[in-house]
Amino acid sequence: MGDLTGGFTWHNPVAVDFAWANLQRLPQIVGRRPVLLVLFPEAREIGLRAELEKLLQRIVGIVDRVQPNPALRDIEAMHRTFWSEQHSAEIIVAIGGGSVIDTAKCLSVTTASGFAGALDAAQPITEFRSLMAVPTTAGTGSEVTPWATVWDPDATPPRKLSLHRRETWPHTALIDPALTRSLPRGATIAGALDALSHSLEAIWNRNANPVSDRLAVGAARKAIEFLPKVLGAPSDREGRSALSLAATMAGLAFSNTKTALAHEISYALTLQRGITHGIACSAPLPLVWRLAQGKNSERDAVLAEIFGCPASEGAARLENFLHSVEVATDLRRYDFSAQEIDTILHSSLSGARGRNFIGAQEMRVA
Amino acid sequence: MGDLTGGFTWHNPVAVDFAWANLQRLPQIVGRRPVLLVLFPEAREIGLRAELEKLLQRIVGIVDRVQPNPALRDIEAMHRTFWSEQHSAEIIVAIGGGSVIDTAKCLSVTTASGFAGALDAAQPITEFRSLMAVPTTAGTGSEVTPWATVWDPDATPPRKLSLHRRETWPHTALIDPALTRSLPRGATIAGALDALSHSLEAIWNRNANPVSDRLAVGAARKAIEFLPKVLGAPSDREGRSALSLAATMAGLAFSNTKTALAHEISYALTLQRGITHGIACSAPLPLVWRLAQGKNSERDAVLAEIFGCPASEGAARLENFLHSVEVATDLRRYDFSAQEIDTILHSSLSGARGRNFIGAQEMRVA
Repeated sequence: MGDLTGGFTWHNPVAVDFAWANLQRLPQIVGRRPVLLVLFPEAREIGLRAELEKLLQRIVGIVDRVQPNPALRDIEAMHRTFWSEQHSAEIIVAIGGGSVIDTAKCLSVTTASGFAGALDAAQPITEFRSLMAVPTTAGTGSEVTPWATVWDPDATPPRKLSLHRRETWPHTALIDPALTRSLPRGATIAGALDALSHSLEAIWNRNANPVSDRLAVGAARKAIEFLPKVLGAPSDREGRSALSLAATMAGLAFSNTKTALAHEISYALTLQRGITHGIACSAPLPLVWRLAQGKNSERDAVLAEIFGCPASEGAARLENFLHSVEVATDLRRYDFSAQEIDTILHSSLSGARGRNFIGAQEMRVA
Repeated sequence: MGDLTGGFTWHNPVAVDFAWANLQRLPQIVGRRPVLLVLFPEAREIGLRAELEKLLQRIVGIVDRVQPNPALRDIEAMHRTFWSEQHSAEIIVAIGGGSVIDTAKCLSVTTASGFAGALDAAQPITEFRSLMAVPTTAGTGSEVTPWATVWDPDATPPRKLSLHRRETWPHTALIDPALTRSLPRGATIAGALDALSHSLEAIWNRNANPVSDRLAVGAARKAIEFLPKVLGAPSDREGRSALSLAATMAGLAFSNTKTALAHEISYALTLQRGITHGIACSAPLPLVWRLAQGKNSERDAVLAEIFGCPASEGAARLENFLHSVEVATDLRRYDFSAQEIDTILHSSLSGARGRNFIGAQEMRVA
């Protein structure tokens, strides 16, 4: 952890290129390389697809059927098409939210057994394509992480899968906060809270380190300060830039720690109640904060920086903040019984992400 | 700058691997790859060379004649030897201070015209070797930057040269604070102050950005808190770890901003009076702080975080701190007249690093 006792590693090879109206630099960066474009369905009606067709010289293919929380069967179909028909693309440009960027990561690598092999860390990647990630939301941080989340709704019970290979770091994160200017209120809130939860989860994390700590605190403070401002002035350049920055900095932080207990809990909320990711992972934050505080004085000191108050007062401040942006933090409000919540919490402590939580081990024993 | 108005870029591909006694992991990381070792002359008498010969299986060559502030003629001779006789090495492991790591960077790349071409950004690198940097001091941050400083004492006047290529980022920074345990008092002070100056120079810098700001503030605070502690308890693990961390975090920060006015001034102090780099670049810090404050409210806010007081009070705090570790901040104490200092300051404002200083342009005009 951040106290250096056990040492730490830090590595993030993504080239971050951040500027208002940065999308206009796309032609300059991509040049004449053939491109696969990965987009969201609405890119056509809002005119983004047409704009990109003008900006880019050589588009080999466009994938724009990406759905939120991409399903394994859809990813597999797109992967087959890409590697059989569109693989002359030298670069994949993903423009969208986390689901679009995650889908592009899935397409960017292949193995002897296609996409299935990419999910198995033991199978070598036989070929990959350079990926440029251009987020149109401010939240997921997927532009600076190597992971993709894939959902398998056909499994019993439905499950969450994770792609994580050395080759799936985006080469470049091209960030243009102007793309988020017209995000609706709900998506703005969900995104900023996703960034906030990445920050907090990077702090109360067994993999926390001094570099991730600095970025996580910076990101959390920006998200908390600027979300209310942006809700009051949605097209404000300074506010939108700050939220995009918070998302990317939080992404850098958790790119090295992964997430923790609140995310593990969120998977149950999303699978069982279909709750949007940004809300599902922020609703449990005050609960997890209360479980974290007092576990480790050095973690408490980092948490204290978030609101500039002792860690023990932070959960209530966080709760007020979340309520102020209309997010319920009592999980019963999401149609779970107290007993169901208890079951989710306890099974989450043993999940891959739940085990990253600093208090997980002693709580599982207790 | 950090206010996002002009956008920013961030990129640092180095894999940081930080742990007490980390040197023992060297065999595991290097494996059976043939190695060129780059060391400092005293590595033999302190037993480090013998330890490395035991740890590493396949040593192709050992370069251990590296001098502080490496001279161009020496680098050129070592470069010729490496690329004609030792280039079967697949990895260069540099273990030492900034001069050793910088020398290794110089050896790691070659061009059609040998090392001379590497100094000319227009000449393509024809071959390069992977570099692992293992700092034995806590200061330069060279383990996480792509630059090497080379001095040409044979030129009239003597001059400082800089190597900076895409290929000269270390692949890995293996950081082991235990290696700094027996650093003498003078080298401990010079190192910590070098890290402090990298931090401050990353803040009052035209290239400052929100990521470098967070790391620079974190590094500066650690250096200021722990240098006095380490001087009181030189082999303390926590203190040495904190200073190594400060050096690496400051290195990450200025790897993206480069240095600024205090470093430009330091080159004159080093060339004209032979002053050690860590002292030469920290002695001018209070002077530069006073020139920086009030230039930009957002920079002032970041500077205010260093001592937790308004930027306008920081220069005096910094001066007291430097005096407490026996560094004179009145440049006349280094045997310069007031007029000479004025000349150095004004010519520094036009230097490559001096121009990075946030106040440089208006001061040159005034």
